[in-house]
Amino acid sequence: MQDRHYILRDVHIIHINGAIKRDHYVEVKEGKIKTIGKMPVPKEKCHLPVISGDNNWLTAGMYNTHAHTPMTLLRGVADDVPLQVWLEKEIWPREALLDKEAVMTGTSLALAEMIRSGTVAFLDMYHLHMDKVFETTLESGIKAVLSRGMIAFGTEEEQEAKRKEAVRFANEWNEYGAGRMKGMLFPHAPYTCPPSFLEKVVEEAAIHELKVGIHVAETEKECQDHLKKYHKRPITHLAELGFLERDAILTHVVHVGEEEWPLLASSSVTVSHNPMSNLKLGSGIAPVTKMKREGIDVTFGTDSTASNNNLDMFEEMRIACLLQKGVFQQPEAIEAKEVFQMATINGAKALGFGDDGLIQEGAPADFILIDKKAFHLQPEQNIFSHLVYSASGHDVTDVFVDGVCLMRKRELQTLDEEKIYYEANRSFKQLEEKKQRGVQR
Amino acid sequence: MQDRHYILRDVHIIHINGAIKRDHYVEVKEGKIKTIGKMPVPKEKCHLPVISGDNNWLTAGMYNTHAHTPMTLLRGVADDVPLQVWLEKEIWPREALLDKEAVMTGTSLALAEMIRSGTVAFLDMYHLHMDKVFETTLESGIKAVLSRGMIAFGTEEEQEAKRKEAVRFANEWNEYGAGRMKGMLFPHAPYTCPPSFLEKVVEEAAIHELKVGIHVAETEKECQDHLKKYHKRPITHLAELGFLERDAILTHVVHVGEEEWPLLASSSVTVSHNPMSNLKLGSGIAPVTKMKREGIDVTFGTDSTASNNNLDMFEEMRIACLLQKGVFQQPEAIEAKEVFQMATINGAKALGFGDDGLIQEGAPADFILIDKKAFHLQPEQNIFSHLVYSASGHDVTDVFVDGVCLMRKRELQTLDEEKIYYEANRSFKQLEEKKQRGVQR
Ligand SMILES: [Zn+2]
Ligand SMILES: [Zn+2]
Repeated sequence: MQDRHYILRDVHIIHINGAIKRDHYVEVKEGKIKTIGKMPVPKEKCHLPVISGDNNWLTAGMYNTHAHTPMTLLRGVADDVPLQVWLEKEIWPREALLDKEAVMTGTSLALAEMIRSGTVAFLDMYHLHMDKVFETTLESGIKAVLSRGMIAFGTEEEQEAKRKEAVRFANEWNEYGAGRMKGMLFPHAPYTCPPSFLEKVVEEAAIHELKVGIHVAETEKECQDHLKKYHKRPITHLAELGFLERDAILTHVVHVGEEEWPLLASSSVTVSHNPMSNLKLGSGIAPVTKMKREGIDVTFGTDSTASNNNLDMFEEMRIACLLQKGVFQQPEAIEAKEVFQMATINGAKALGFGDDGLIQEGAPADFILIDKKAFHLQPEQNIFSHLVYSASGHDVTDVFVDGVCLMRKRELQTLDEEKIYYEANRSFKQLEEKKQRGVQR
Repeated sequence: MQDRHYILRDVHIIHINGAIKRDHYVEVKEGKIKTIGKMPVPKEKCHLPVISGDNNWLTAGMYNTHAHTPMTLLRGVADDVPLQVWLEKEIWPREALLDKEAVMTGTSLALAEMIRSGTVAFLDMYHLHMDKVFETTLESGIKAVLSRGMIAFGTEEEQEAKRKEAVRFANEWNEYGAGRMKGMLFPHAPYTCPPSFLEKVVEEAAIHELKVGIHVAETEKECQDHLKKYHKRPITHLAELGFLERDAILTHVVHVGEEEWPLLASSSVTVSHNPMSNLKLGSGIAPVTKMKREGIDVTFGTDSTASNNNLDMFEEMRIACLLQKGVFQQPEAIEAKEVFQMATINGAKALGFGDDGLIQEGAPADFILIDKKAFHLQPEQNIFSHLVYSASGHDVTDVFVDGVCLMRKRELQTLDEEKIYYEANRSFKQLEEKKQRGVQR
């Protein structure tokens, strides 16, 4: 897409530990950071192609550990209603009508929004036309971990077919695009997949060396129902099924029983905290401060735009942080630096992108530029605080993934902005017309 | 600043009740909306100067009912510390060093940020160089209600001097700029102003027909301390002092005693809800859903950027709404439309700008344009939901106040952007140097 060896000059680097290097350049070679140096660019490198960083801030991009991108087409179709009404009257009838084209359109819209707001990698779980989601994502240049979601209500045969298809999808695409894309296994939740099914998913994950993820302990009701049915809470149950031994990404984890803390703390699971979705759906507030104290890795996810309603990870950072302070009435509960690390290096690690987010020699050239002159980031002295407490995805001007520039001066480089805008609206209109006509696919 | 009679063409109007008028024009004459019509512009109006609305959304601007704008210079100086440390080690020592120039610089920075994020009017309370704050604000073209804040710890004489100065300030500037600027009286809080002082403020307000405001019931500790000292909670106390009879703007109101609800419900007070500040300082979450049920008018404020840390009212809307859903685990607790009304017409009414925010013939020409093609506002069908759940101040492209364009295509028209950026940073550096040298003013 562009030169594989170049200099990005005139940037001020904000490291994830808070250290700041002013007036530097970054030499990128074959997707990695080759050197970082103080301006001016030395003579022996002056023959290389140069991109100006326009004196902006350079820092780690965002790693979104939970999304359902095709649903972006359903943004705002219903808010302010109870969960069951939302699912049964609004979401499911529309999802039943989503064809390949609509799924690709929704994914493109999400990709455009994610790149614009500084996301460099994301995890996605969805159940329709996932190969198309894969292709669309691959073309955009972003990093992704994708899964064909599994809900296992049916007969043994139906369950096996679902599992096989999910494993086929994950294996087919795992480590594609020089490792930029990964496959994983994501059974929907302990209340939609029976224990025997989850056990087999764990087995498959071990055989194929795949990551696993699941939604769990999202609402108190889910936990109470699980207790009634199985006489144990869902996280306890997952531990018994071997799920926590697979570096699992546990999504939501809002309601944790006292006896479940040691299970989480002694395993290598990562929590994907989705604060805005949890608030909007009335699920509650995850105990992030306690997770931190217990040494459990926390990362952030947006969930789908049907329950968020945008994909701006800066908002998740800010809200996550403010909630812990406000709800527990403890302003010192959590610090800006920790929150920034959760959104960046913790996310990268959870998604299997090792040393992404460390702006250092030898690390992947994944980073973003941030408008240095935005008024709400002044006085610039305290930029690290501003990143968490004042910035937004709108402040991102440029995005680089594996050294490839995906957004330059706020213009997407790998996606067609006009086409996405046009198709998203056309596709949504067709969907609403179909729904009104009562047409089923 | 520009023609007093013109046509703004090609806009899609979003009314605060959710109604949408596509492809319209707005005729503005002498600061008011003269007519609203369907495109095309009729022949008999074609001689008027025309501004293109670029097919963007047009809606009511934001009314910020609580700010301390000069403090914008202190953005991010300290976060993540307990309130007393924050005040005593970080904020007060710096405030002691703020000279006229620093106050004007902080105010300009805040004005730039507010206008950029679609705020058309705000309330400000501060205690240093308020005449300079007034002048700076007047020049920007925004609407404002300003007050010289009062903390009354001193002797009788000192208290009287403070009160006199606050009344002098409010009277001198009230209804200035053809009513665009107002003065008001704002004693800091019941714990910093003795009851006798508050009574006299109420008297002065009645004599001079001024609005009153106060911080109250921000923390549980404040309420408990008040109970110990006066054997009643602070809102009860304010009611006894006649404060609630003056259409008061009560700021924060996080902790309300059972016996205080009827006092609030039966008076004409407005609550200024500052959800992000309340979270960040660990104060708690105001019972907005209950206020709504009790028929108490709620509006939004940002508080200062030292506890927020930005002035984007769209964020306050979104967080206020999500908090009520999440904390009380009730997704239907509050609707997007109500929240939008709180941020717009409720705010306008509270600040004394009567029918501002109603985009209708005869109303003041106060409105904003919003980028119709932003990805996170697609599919555009559900734009009203997007305004609350997905938009941000960054989506605002144009701002009009009394028919005067304060921002055009994201460029400020009445403020010098380069100068503000430069001076904010210079002024902050000087302040930090002074602080380190231990120089006192
Ligand atoms: Zn999910
Ligand atoms: Zn205040």
